[in-house]
Amino acid sequence: MPALQWGGRFTRVPDGELLAFGSSLEEDLVLAPFDVACSFAHVETLLGGGIITSAEATALSAALRLVDDEIASGTFAVYARERCAEDVHGAIDARVRELAGAAGQSLHAGRSRNDQVATTLLLYVRDRALRGELRSRDIAATLVARAREELDAGTLLAGCTHRQPAQPVLLAFVLAAWSEPFLRSMHRFAAVAQTASAACPLGSGALAGSTLPLDRERGARVLGFTGPSRNALDAIGSRDAALDLAHGSVRVLIDASRIAEELIAWSTPAYGYVCLDDGAATGSSLMPQKRNPDPLELVRAHAAKLLGGYTGAMATLCGLAPSYQRDLQETKAQVIAIVEDALATLDAFARTLQGIAFVPERMEQGALEGYTIATDVADALIAAGTSARAAHAMVGAAVARAERERRALDEGDLASLADQAGTGEIRAPLDARASVLAKRTRGSTAPDDVREQIVSLESELASAPEAPA
Amino acid sequence: MPALQWGGRFTRVPDGELLAFGSSLEEDLVLAPFDVACSFAHVETLLGGGIITSAEATALSAALRLVDDEIASGTFAVYARERCAEDVHGAIDARVRELAGAAGQSLHAGRSRNDQVATTLLLYVRDRALRGELRSRDIAATLVARAREELDAGTLLAGCTHRQPAQPVLLAFVLAAWSEPFLRSMHRFAAVAQTASAACPLGSGALAGSTLPLDRERGARVLGFTGPSRNALDAIGSRDAALDLAHGSVRVLIDASRIAEELIAWSTPAYGYVCLDDGAATGSSLMPQKRNPDPLELVRAHAAKLLGGYTGAMATLCGLAPSYQRDLQETKAQVIAIVEDALATLDAFARTLQGIAFVPERMEQGALEGYTIATDVADALIAAGTSARAAHAMVGAAVARAERERRALDEGDLASLADQAGTGEIRAPLDARASVLAKRTRGSTAPDDVREQIVSLESELASAPEAPA
Amino acid sequence: MPALQWGGRFTRVPDGELLAFGSSLEEDLVLAPFDVACSFAHVETLLGGGIITSAEATALSAALRLVDDEIASGTFAVYARERCAEDVHGAIDARVRELAGAAGQSLHAGRSRNDQVATTLLLYVRDRALRGELRSRDIAATLVARAREELDAGTLLAGCTHRQPAQPVLLAFVLAAWSEPFLRSMHRFAAVAQTASAACPLGSGALAGSTLPLDRERGARVLGFTGPSRNALDAIGSRDAALDLAHGSVRVLIDASRIAEELIAWSTPAYGYVCLDDGAATGSSLMPQKRNPDPLELVRAHAAKLLGGYTGAMATLCGLAPSYQRDLQETKAQVIAIVEDALATLDAFARTLQGIAFVPERMEQGALEGYTIATDVADALIAAGTSARAAHAMVGAAVARAERERRALDEGDLASLADQAGTGEIRAPLDARASVLAKRTRGSTAPDDVREQIVSLESELASAPEAPA
Amino acid sequence: MPALQWGGRFTRVPDGELLAFGSSLEEDLVLAPFDVACSFAHVETLLGGGIITSAEATALSAALRLVDDEIASGTFAVYARERCAEDVHGAIDARVRELAGAAGQSLHAGRSRNDQVATTLLLYVRDRALRGELRSRDIAATLVARAREELDAGTLLAGCTHRQPAQPVLLAFVLAAWSEPFLRSMHRFAAVAQTASAACPLGSGALAGSTLPLDRERGARVLGFTGPSRNALDAIGSRDAALDLAHGSVRVLIDASRIAEELIAWSTPAYGYVCLDDGAATGSSLMPQKRNPDPLELVRAHAAKLLGGYTGAMATLCGLAPSYQRDLQETKAQVIAIVEDALATLDAFARTLQGIAFVPERMEQGALEGYTIATDVADALIAAGTSARAAHAMVGAAVARAERERRALDEGDLASLADQAGTGEIRAPLDARASVLAKRTRGSTAPDDVREQIVSLESELASAPEAPA
Repeated sequence: MPALQWGGRFTRVPDGELLAFGSSLEEDLVLAPFDVACSFAHVETLLGGGIITSAEATALSAALRLVDDEIASGTFAVYARERCAEDVHGAIDARVRELAGAAGQSLHAGRSRNDQVATTLLLYVRDRALRGELRSRDIAATLVARAREELDAGTLLAGCTHRQPAQPVLLAFVLAAWSEPFLRSMHRFAAVAQTASAACPLGSGALAGSTLPLDRERGARVLGFTGPSRNALDAIGSRDAALDLAHGSVRVLIDASRIAEELIAWSTPAYGYVCLDDGAATGSSLMPQKRNPDPLELVRAHAAKLLGGYTGAMATLCGLAPSYQRDLQETKAQVIAIVEDALATLDAFARTLQGIAFVPERMEQGALEGYTIATDVADALIAAGTSARAAHAMVGAAVARAERERRALDEGDLASLADQAGTGEIRAPLDARASVLAKRTRGSTAPDDVREQIVSLESELASAPEAPA
Repeated sequence: MPALQWGGRFTRVPDGELLAFGSSLEEDLVLAPFDVACSFAHVETLLGGGIITSAEATALSAALRLVDDEIASGTFAVYARERCAEDVHGAIDARVRELAGAAGQSLHAGRSRNDQVATTLLLYVRDRALRGELRSRDIAATLVARAREELDAGTLLAGCTHRQPAQPVLLAFVLAAWSEPFLRSMHRFAAVAQTASAACPLGSGALAGSTLPLDRERGARVLGFTGPSRNALDAIGSRDAALDLAHGSVRVLIDASRIAEELIAWSTPAYGYVCLDDGAATGSSLMPQKRNPDPLELVRAHAAKLLGGYTGAMATLCGLAPSYQRDLQETKAQVIAIVEDALATLDAFARTLQGIAFVPERMEQGALEGYTIATDVADALIAAGTSARAAHAMVGAAVARAERERRALDEGDLASLADQAGTGEIRAPLDARASVLAKRTRGSTAPDDVREQIVSLESELASAPEAPA
Repeated sequence: MPALQWGGRFTRVPDGELLAFGSSLEEDLVLAPFDVACSFAHVETLLGGGIITSAEATALSAALRLVDDEIASGTFAVYARERCAEDVHGAIDARVRELAGAAGQSLHAGRSRNDQVATTLLLYVRDRALRGELRSRDIAATLVARAREELDAGTLLAGCTHRQPAQPVLLAFVLAAWSEPFLRSMHRFAAVAQTASAACPLGSGALAGSTLPLDRERGARVLGFTGPSRNALDAIGSRDAALDLAHGSVRVLIDASRIAEELIAWSTPAYGYVCLDDGAATGSSLMPQKRNPDPLELVRAHAAKLLGGYTGAMATLCGLAPSYQRDLQETKAQVIAIVEDALATLDAFARTLQGIAFVPERMEQGALEGYTIATDVADALIAAGTSARAAHAMVGAAVARAERERRALDEGDLASLADQAGTGEIRAPLDARASVLAKRTRGSTAPDDVREQIVSLESELASAPEAPA
Repeated sequence: MPALQWGGRFTRVPDGELLAFGSSLEEDLVLAPFDVACSFAHVETLLGGGIITSAEATALSAALRLVDDEIASGTFAVYARERCAEDVHGAIDARVRELAGAAGQSLHAGRSRNDQVATTLLLYVRDRALRGELRSRDIAATLVARAREELDAGTLLAGCTHRQPAQPVLLAFVLAAWSEPFLRSMHRFAAVAQTASAACPLGSGALAGSTLPLDRERGARVLGFTGPSRNALDAIGSRDAALDLAHGSVRVLIDASRIAEELIAWSTPAYGYVCLDDGAATGSSLMPQKRNPDPLELVRAHAAKLLGGYTGAMATLCGLAPSYQRDLQETKAQVIAIVEDALATLDAFARTLQGIAFVPERMEQGALEGYTIATDVADALIAAGTSARAAHAMVGAAVARAERERRALDEGDLASLADQAGTGEIRAPLDARASVLAKRTRGSTAPDDVREQIVSLESELASAPEAPA
């Protein structure tokens, strides 16, 4: 029979199967240290309001410290499972009552699971948002560092749109581009952490506040919030910060999935642009020769899965009356599942990125394929006075002719185009490196522009927070 | 270091963190008995093709029986976890090799994890589809049985649309209506089970078939499939039956969520139409008087969550190149998660339904509220020759008048309407029971119609399969 | 001011902005012919019940025929928009009243928009399910026909898993595999059409049936249903068949998206396996040389979009109390949007498929790349008595060696493996064609097996329905 | 034959059906004014780079002003549809070329549809984010104003959790709680507007920048961005700000759906807490007495629909290679559809809220039902020295007893509890108003606390932006 935090009004023991169905223990055990922190703060809240004595506060705090140790050592999880606790919050309360003697009966004074869960969840959100921020930064930093290496190496490839060769670009430029969403992600996580640190629900009671003189300011301060929340009913029924975190987690995975998709393509023999480290590839149980990019495929799949997870979390709230409904337990469980999975997936992605070796010769081999300098030729005509529209049409026809003749664009084409356009001689890059060097706009793939981008990225990354000890 | 089924080509030990990230053991342990069945069949496939000897087949079968026992007793799960197996399939293979001596090295001959997983998953789908069918039937049967009771009791209430009172109906009629989606669900699950029993992928190899003369017909027969699958590449890359099962699971939960929503409303003091059993309600940690309909709220929330799960499972496949990609591992894991959760939720829903007590006096008290017999009055005018349009307008005005005067429609209204319409005296039901009795169309809420519906439902339920022993 | 079908009880004109917000006319205009069919049937229902006279029935039917003509010519849409109708159902009712004189006032007798919409929607579902079935069949037939061509041509390529080369396969085998999900889709749509033809809601009234003696059997018969629905409340509140259709539409698009993804990859210069027809490619506004596979990208994107659409449609129902709620209007609109979009996308996909030219020389060039015959070599060792496990490890090592030496597996490797395994001489295919020919299991990529698959596919396709005139 | 911005390389006219399928004109016509703004800026970009002459710039600007007028008057939409334009961007370009003479051929110099669309979309996002911010603020302000009225009126009701009565609260407190998510939404939209104003993609070209010396700073400044974007490839392939806007739009609708759900319940006779204005209710075509809360149901349904829409928009990006792919066209279309629908739904919600009349007598009638003051009684015991745990159990039992005796808690219960707890006399509120007055924590439902909340809310609202003229 599980330990319940209620029951006086009930005449029958609850159905064990239904209690097991309703238990969220497995999903919310990860909240244990945050519930302990919240409980420490509640002790301060009670003490500040004169509701418990100093001696009681001391006893409760000592018990909470013991629980914290048990959480760290893993014995608490065993305890909670053996008790078939409804959730981690009830399990901690039960354990405190065992450890704190008579004082233990007062830990829950003036507190509802509603404000307790809301507060605990915010502490979790804040912690995980910081982790998300750091992992986003680390991935961005890895990409920027490799961009700097490849800028020095001058590696070229065909930049694509629609997966078709478009224009020659530097690999460094591509890597810098890939880092950008992770910087945005970094800022998105930082904003979530800030949101989760604003208003502390503790002391909101079940929905209406309390008749006990709880010192809410003290509780909020102890937990590092800006202050107590403004309205109790809103505070206990909102999951906004948790949703924000889940959303940020899904978005960064979608960003990662896009790069994973590219790298999966690049690791095929058709491209041969990258080699995965043996440590980041997987074999086949039947085919002895296989080396599969499994971690990258899994990154892509986890993004899709968590997209569904976020949809489910929002669907639990859609059309749900305000205030606390039990459905919010599932919202909580889903947010936790999304966030833990996303952080693990980011780790796997980071590890895989680190083990990737580029194959510059294969990249450069394809950099001109697909007439990637055609736009530069058209631009040369424009610079020489032809209208954009006319230049586009003439160069398109020149490409079609060269393709029929199975050859690249060459000086002859330039001369003939100049002739056709009546511009006098034109000069345009006819190889990939010249094309890249010819770019003249900020943010372009020209080496100097890319260097500037890298400097700017490094400076933005440097201003991000350090990992906690 | 985990047991892998590959590695000859690799020069470095795989990254342990990435292997752990890629492991699906926790998600697919539930497949263990189905993998054993699949492996038994593969032994037959090998034997039928003369690839292994009878002695080897005997040794392999004996080992598989031991594994089956270990699965049943729970020791296999411990074993698999200790070995950090990549998935349940590899763990069973490893255990068989330990148990079967030299023969164990041949179990995987001519088999790829691709055809193995596809076959195992179909066996799982078939089993769970049958369970889904049975649980849908049981819920429908419970509702139909209660409909019969309430038909005898004659309980009336205000049938609603837009949650506003619409027309008086029998509670039996409502309960019969609630059973219908579960009958549809029963048939949907049955169709999934049939699909999952058609084409057996075993013997498809990794994607292209095998140069070994595997006896695919024998394997398919042993497993109860109609025959071997037609095309190896399709067989190993399709998750259609699994998606069908997941979809059926979500749909039935959405049906359940709709009834849960109604019962949650009905259990509020505002309605007071139902009392939840103490066993199916939950209290509050703060508010001593509370009795909350948690299991019903959780049914609703699980429906929302699994809707997201199905979205995620489909999203993993969207835009994924055909053939096997590792993403399918996540599809598999998600389908399993959805199905197990849905079956547990259906159980909880069934238990909660059983414990519900109706409060006929509260229902009947509200049956006339909201002028629910207005349509019958309009129909009486129509039957007497007034056009539908005119009748609707006249009765609408009569209701507005009665509402201003804070009274029900009465004989005076009938007289005045008849007068206004020039129809001569009209007769129309002015109380809820008379309204119900006056219905004259098949499928209506009239007691005789409802009795006929119940007979028909009972007969359809009787033709459904029995629960397996 | 719009034409409304209600209002007697109301004292104030409805807010025009809110009416406009609530109008579903743009979304449900496509239902117009089906509503007319439903209205024809309702006239029969009324006539069969003696509620209207033959003369009235004649007048109503004549008016409905006129409306049908106006729908076909497009003038009805103009009419409905000018009237700011709430929905297509109200607009048709209004137009009939204009056209049918006094009889027009009686069309809606005993009918609610609830049973009207439910019936109309089923007629639409049936029609579109048949279209979906036909388009699925046509796509499958195109793929099977091309498979037959390529079987005769004997085109080979590297079959992939994880997008990495796995084993040599026939292009015909791949095309046959691609056709399979469209055959499943064909059957799925056929099942939806059957479901949508079973139980006719007409005559269910708003939720409770009617006191008018409607001849529901006659209505159902006229519309080609098996019979009237069993329970009025269920009939008006269920959207199951519509959801089934939407689901089938999404599933077939996901199947198409998978092939689109492959073809997009194959159309890059890195692969060069296919050329898109100029008619199915798109250029760039800036880059004169571009030829982009836009229709295939759009197929992929529409699949993703409609996946979201189906999620939304299910979300509107999740936790919604049974019976009719206005939310069902959005479910209806979403189903229509999904289905119309899916059918258009299937059309675009079919057109694009038809314009694809394969480039066999590029395919065959890569067929051996990636040591794709390694599995055959291992199988040869197994056939010669080596255990599967040992064979896998030895061949894996041989591949690693050959890769270091930048060469293919050759006779020397076979000799050395045989030696190592102590099997005596082994024979294994060392080129792609030999590998394909060596397959010995039903459903494999061996030419004879593929021929058999094609015959079976053709026979299954031949049993599917013909397109309606 | 449509006007295309490309074609020189093509030998065949594109397939008209496929072009129609690929056209996004209907979806992106709403972008027309923003594309004109973007084009104005591009003229500055060209002029600043010396690529066009002042005369050309003047001609182009004049043409763009004409187009702007045509957009405002509606003639442009007719023009674009008649030309079967691929999208609004191409249509505007075509129209400018007609209007600007020779200069028109140069508008697209150095510009790709990729940077054009990315920039235009950001301008749209900024505009709509501001509208979202304003509408959120207006809804919050309405709720706060009504909270102030109801605070003065002192209206009480039973605050609920799990939809079961929990504790008495002020209606003003509930309304203040309802306003909170709209304030959060207001800030969320403001952050989106800021994000969308940071980095201007214009001048990024197709993906790599341009060889023409475009004055990107000038373009960015003209459009009110902080500056040009950092990396061209990222700039043209990111839809982050658009997704942020779509996400914010869905989130605020989910918030609205929760209140809609509550109001739908409150408008039933079972509650009778609110009357909808006739202008915001809808009747039935069959049942003359009906008054349905359709706009609120539609708010709920639109939230569910747009949740699906956002899922679809994210799914188009999931696993999509970086850079521009045509799938982004659908992302764009979906974001627009979500945002336009969400803004319209917020309008409808705001209108409906304004027309709601509360029925205080019905609310107060139920404020004590369900033993809502039980927590206060327990708190009184705690304040008198009983432990929280013991107090909860004793009061739970007292409630069970009172319930059996079908009476409220009374002074006798207090005495008996005090006796049982050995506390000496205790005082606790036994009616709803006393309960509310007894609350002593900030953020509670006590009148003074609620007044403070309202002041704080009003001050936060006052700092939000004004509506543009």
